[in-house]
Amino acid sequence: MGYLHDGHASLIRTARAESDLVITTIFVNPLQFAPNEDFTRYPRDLERDWRIAEEAGADVLFTPTPDEMYPSGFQTTISIGGVTTPFEGIFRPTHFDGVATVVAKLFLLTQPHKAFFGQKDYQQCMVVKKLVRDLAMPLEIVICPTKRENDGLAMSSRNVYLSAEERSKATILFKALERAQNLIQQGERKRRAIETLLQETLTSVREITIDYAAAADSETLEQADIFAETQDIVLLLAVRLGKTRLIDNLVVKT
Amino acid sequence: MGYLHDGHASLIRTARAESDLVITTIFVNPLQFAPNEDFTRYPRDLERDWRIAEEAGADVLFTPTPDEMYPSGFQTTISIGGVTTPFEGIFRPTHFDGVATVVAKLFLLTQPHKAFFGQKDYQQCMVVKKLVRDLAMPLEIVICPTKRENDGLAMSSRNVYLSAEERSKATILFKALERAQNLIQQGERKRRAIETLLQETLTSVREITIDYAAAADSETLEQADIFAETQDIVLLLAVRLGKTRLIDNLVVKT
Repeated sequence: MGYLHDGHASLIRTARAESDLVITTIFVNPLQFAPNEDFTRYPRDLERDWRIAEEAGADVLFTPTPDEMYPSGFQTTISIGGVTTPFEGIFRPTHFDGVATVVAKLFLLTQPHKAFFGQKDYQQCMVVKKLVRDLAMPLEIVICPTKRENDGLAMSSRNVYLSAEERSKATILFKALERAQNLIQQGERKRRAIETLLQETLTSVREITIDYAAAADSETLEQADIFAETQDIVLLLAVRLGKTRLIDNLVVKT
Repeated sequence: MGYLHDGHASLIRTARAESDLVITTIFVNPLQFAPNEDFTRYPRDLERDWRIAEEAGADVLFTPTPDEMYPSGFQTTISIGGVTTPFEGIFRPTHFDGVATVVAKLFLLTQPHKAFFGQKDYQQCMVVKKLVRDLAMPLEIVICPTKRENDGLAMSSRNVYLSAEERSKATILFKALERAQNLIQQGERKRRAIETLLQETLTSVREITIDYAAAADSETLEQADIFAETQDIVLLLAVRLGKTRLIDNLVVKT
């Protein structure tokens, strides 16, 4: 969606190292925003994006307009069940239809052998992998690690919305993830205990409202009451801080 | 969906004439049947299909099983609006989701430059063209004329369901289409007059129940009260004759 930061640049650098030709798509996709969301105010700076993408190694910058992607009479929706249902699916009910539809169309337009996605949008990564598997799209999805600021805040184009004070308080997300990771690594497998620690840590910042702070199976996103010893757990957070919605996650491998 | 007749063979022959390599897919797609429909009794004869496809010029016969197309956990649906809504969309409300989803997956699996569809499933042809256009699938859809028996009945795998008596009465569909075509060619542009002639002709056979017998714009399937002089009109029929559902259509060009 553009307004590139070093998280995006790292995706382009990884793609560059693994590919003959790198296409970067920049498209603020209206389909994945609900009417009450931040589509119109989403930050955009195509000149800066161009420079960052080129420096990171992109050969082609593909920047279609909404009218080019969705011309008059466009009427197709791709819906995926299962992994789309919890978490973001509850708070942004039409979001993943928009993601699946635009990603499928971008894949069909650019026809890549590999596509690189950031782990920061964890549930989106699972949705895109499901899309590709279910429809037998002929490409490989590569999930790349979340890039973080020095204090741990996950890089996000939406971080520019934060005031200086909010920016400083936003570090609580990564702290909560790390504390819950420690708890799991010490042997805790009860979901309620893990989630309570996440929630208590987050709400230590008065300005935060939690959409969800949850532990789930890292592949299926299913939420067992007690995780198996061998199960990889993903910790998933979405909070509102002032007018900004932030998400983050951490996978705890066993 | 297999149980090939000369309509299918003509698609393969056309593909053969226009292509280096011809793939014929045979898959009775459970997603496009409703629970009350004829999925289990739909006629199947893979050995005979193999011979017909080979004689018509197919290089590859692709015959996946439902489990291969829809493995456990398959959860993706492609829905198309607009052209899916009237006609078959009313009588088979989930049908075109199943068609769009399977056709997209078959296209992604086989990656053809061209795909050949029979005009007999007219609305399906429009849905597939919309799918390809909306998602920018990199292939061309070629619509091939409906093949008919000597007495005008459109070839269909479902014709084997008809008793000898029903088979003889089924010719009324093409007669109705021809009469309505004549009426339009004589200058009639009022939809009600065209549809009344279709319906009266069909119901002259007592055993027929009409699902729809309609005139519509040949591209958008919109049903104006009075068609423009320059508008190509498609006549669309779906009837039940005994336990068999039959469809047919005719495009009347201006």
